[in-house]
Amino acid sequence: MITPRTPSGVLELLPAEQIAFQRMLDVIRSAYERFGFLPIETPAYELSEVLLTKTGGETERQVYFVQSTGALEKSAAGETTGLPEMALRFDLTVPLARYVAEHEHQLTFPFRRYQMQRVYRGERAQRGRYREFYQCDIDIIGKDELSPRHDAEFPAVIHQVFTDLAIGPFTIQLNNRKLMRGFFEDLGIADGDLQARVLREVDKLDKRGPDYLRTTLTGEGFGLSADAVEQVLDFVAVRSTSHEDALARLDDVVARSAGSAALAEGAAELKVVLDLVRALGVPEGDYRLNFSIARGLDYYTGTVYETTLDEHPEIGSICSGGRYDDLAGQYTKSRLPGVGISIGLSRLFWQLREAGLVHAAESTVQVLVPQMDPDLLPQTLALATELRQGGINTESVLDGGKLGKQLKYADRAGIRFVAILGPQEVEAGTVTVKDLRRADQFSVPQDEVVRALRVELAQPLELT
Amino acid sequence: MITPRTPSGVLELLPAEQIAFQRMLDVIRSAYERFGFLPIETPAYELSEVLLTKTGGETERQVYFVQSTGALEKSAAGETTGLPEMALRFDLTVPLARYVAEHEHQLTFPFRRYQMQRVYRGERAQRGRYREFYQCDIDIIGKDELSPRHDAEFPAVIHQVFTDLAIGPFTIQLNNRKLMRGFFEDLGIADGDLQARVLREVDKLDKRGPDYLRTTLTGEGFGLSADAVEQVLDFVAVRSTSHEDALARLDDVVARSAGSAALAEGAAELKVVLDLVRALGVPEGDYRLNFSIARGLDYYTGTVYETTLDEHPEIGSICSGGRYDDLAGQYTKSRLPGVGISIGLSRLFWQLREAGLVHAAESTVQVLVPQMDPDLLPQTLALATELRQGGINTESVLDGGKLGKQLKYADRAGIRFVAILGPQEVEAGTVTVKDLRRADQFSVPQDEVVRALRVELAQPLELT
Repeated sequence: MITPRTPSGVLELLPAEQIAFQRMLDVIRSAYERFGFLPIETPAYELSEVLLTKTGGETERQVYFVQSTGALEKSAAGETTGLPEMALRFDLTVPLARYVAEHEHQLTFPFRRYQMQRVYRGERAQRGRYREFYQCDIDIIGKDELSPRHDAEFPAVIHQVFTDLAIGPFTIQLNNRKLMRGFFEDLGIADGDLQARVLREVDKLDKRGPDYLRTTLTGEGFGLSADAVEQVLDFVAVRSTSHEDALARLDDVVARSAGSAALAEGAAELKVVLDLVRALGVPEGDYRLNFSIARGLDYYTGTVYETTLDEHPEIGSICSGGRYDDLAGQYTKSRLPGVGISIGLSRLFWQLREAGLVHAAESTVQVLVPQMDPDLLPQTLALATELRQGGINTESVLDGGKLGKQLKYADRAGIRFVAILGPQEVEAGTVTVKDLRRADQFSVPQDEVVRALRVELAQPLELT
Repeated sequence: MITPRTPSGVLELLPAEQIAFQRMLDVIRSAYERFGFLPIETPAYELSEVLLTKTGGETERQVYFVQSTGALEKSAAGETTGLPEMALRFDLTVPLARYVAEHEHQLTFPFRRYQMQRVYRGERAQRGRYREFYQCDIDIIGKDELSPRHDAEFPAVIHQVFTDLAIGPFTIQLNNRKLMRGFFEDLGIADGDLQARVLREVDKLDKRGPDYLRTTLTGEGFGLSADAVEQVLDFVAVRSTSHEDALARLDDVVARSAGSAALAEGAAELKVVLDLVRALGVPEGDYRLNFSIARGLDYYTGTVYETTLDEHPEIGSICSGGRYDDLAGQYTKSRLPGVGISIGLSRLFWQLREAGLVHAAESTVQVLVPQMDPDLLPQTLALATELRQGGINTESVLDGGKLGKQLKYADRAGIRFVAILGPQEVEAGTVTVKDLRRADQFSVPQDEVVRALRVELAQPLELT
């Protein structure tokens, strides 16, 4: 006998939680489709040669390789050398790059795609960090160029997603990498590598405080002036408080600038984005400038996004992304600039559950039809069929047993309604409907039960 | 530059086809939920030790193993021996067995689950055979026992799925392994292995004809009498033509039986199933007995199902399954009998496409809002927002260009409506709506556009 168990680092759910998870996937998909993004799916594995072109470092260390039995035997016998032929995807961005480059001539640009699939990373196993997890991504990919206007749609999509998920108030944080780069250039820090190292230190601000930064950034390896450090601290502290304040903050950094073209360009892009975000109807309390947001320092080149839950800052960013200059330079000569965001849903689900924000969902089963008398089985099955044909998710009990036990099952399983057709009901031509949430019951003629239940199911349940 | 390409044996679709595929997944999921099945998902890979308990043969040869970079290095250095720690699932049944055994005490039995995920098999690459493909499974698992009544729900679910998929008329074929076993016992063929070998020969009936069977089955290795072979040929030729005919056929085989208990039991089970299938409202023309259906000879123990498209017999079974005695004997001492079916959707999609039964779907995008004048961008974005808030999937054009080009894009992309807000419309307070399918257009006041489009979208499109 083998002990049944999953490999470590996977999120496997019981049905009640899977229903809650699936509803989150459905909400996200629906929002992505609402904004005109098109679905794609890619295989779980790619050719190693294709997948592992860009990085040689941390990412490759985390990759899972895939080998057929035959390939494994050849490798063990020393007949083949080098990396296995295939590897599991570690994100959805590299597969998107491969997909767009491979199908370039069959796609229309700007290409708007969504993709919601699992990705794989051999991370150190720890609570809430998964080795297999869902990413829910959207990107808009341009050919040759893509106006910054497109960057404005992402805060609107994020707003739709997190409003619909109803997990509490949130704030979409905006910044721009050109603006940051320009700010550092104005300070005389033109070297990208030094900028990146300064930003990594700035990331420690919350934990270590400003004095740590003052000491470190003026010290060896950095050599910033005390004045420059104060300017950095002022800059990364910027959080706008309203739409007008955001525009004013941008005017302010431009006015203080020593003339960096990148800074001016970044500020102009952010203005376009802010104005269109407002035109798209996102309430101004739900987005703000945050000049401390940097994101993937090597990758993003313009607008960057993070999203935080106002009442759960400890969770960190729940949806992030940004603008990049060239999606697929490793696969095609075409220049493919893009902008996108990603939601790491498995981790988010775990965090929300830890924070008590995932509640035991109602079952996908809406009505249980119990079995009270085996002789009435044809009638109860016909009732179940009628309910199903009326669009109601219905479970038939086929094994019988005491009604009390069947009601208890429905209650525990989160099934709200029980439609009883016993000998009395058959004689009276009625069905007895129990509403387990409201602890209520009513009787309806058999030919009205579908209509009656549809009315009940269409009403939002107000729990007191 | 690396050539962007997928590994062989995967089904990767362009967005228009992905939309069609996704709609099939949605239809199947909806039907599964309609019948009260609950969702689960399991990781793509399992521990090899857990996954590969049952079989040592063909299946294991087809398994893909998964190794982290670290494990690969250790293995190459000879520090580890034996199989890699993890392997990709090759079906959804073994993961279900592991899941039910692992979570046995947290599940309610009968446990009704659906699962729609990709599985992996290192098959020889050939057209329409995939190494990564979707399976869409439902099973009902009992604890200790599970009445044959449950077997009746599967034809009803199959009927719902294939009616909703609307890919043409289909027939659900039913048989029972006990009935078959009993029939062979009556003929004096009690040895299960010999039964299996005879059935494998019977499978060649269509290709090789009855004389091949007469020669083979009376010859070396089989040794059946000529009379026995004729009885086999008569038996496997049984196809019922109506519900009453099916019951009569069962009475007939029982009447002819030499007294096999298995045959009587199998016939009684089929009668229960047939009567409940009718009670569940499945039209009698859509199911029939077919005594040639055997399915997984080692695995199934009672009712077995296949489903065929009446107008495309060349496709073979598009949905199959059956009853098994013990799901998870390798993982738990509990006896877990079950019954289930599986749809191999990737292969089915390919077959339907080959048969011309997958049509370019309408886009998930319902309305395109073109951009005609950059100054009107805030207004067109506000219009798009209004449409989205009205539940309409809307794509905004942000890059502008000629209207004709934007209309052409919508047409090619399968977007049915275009909602135009140009200078004239702004002045008149209207929106011009073009219906590209009907080659029609109309003008509505701006505050009525959502309602008007919802009415249009709710009406089924009749194409002449």
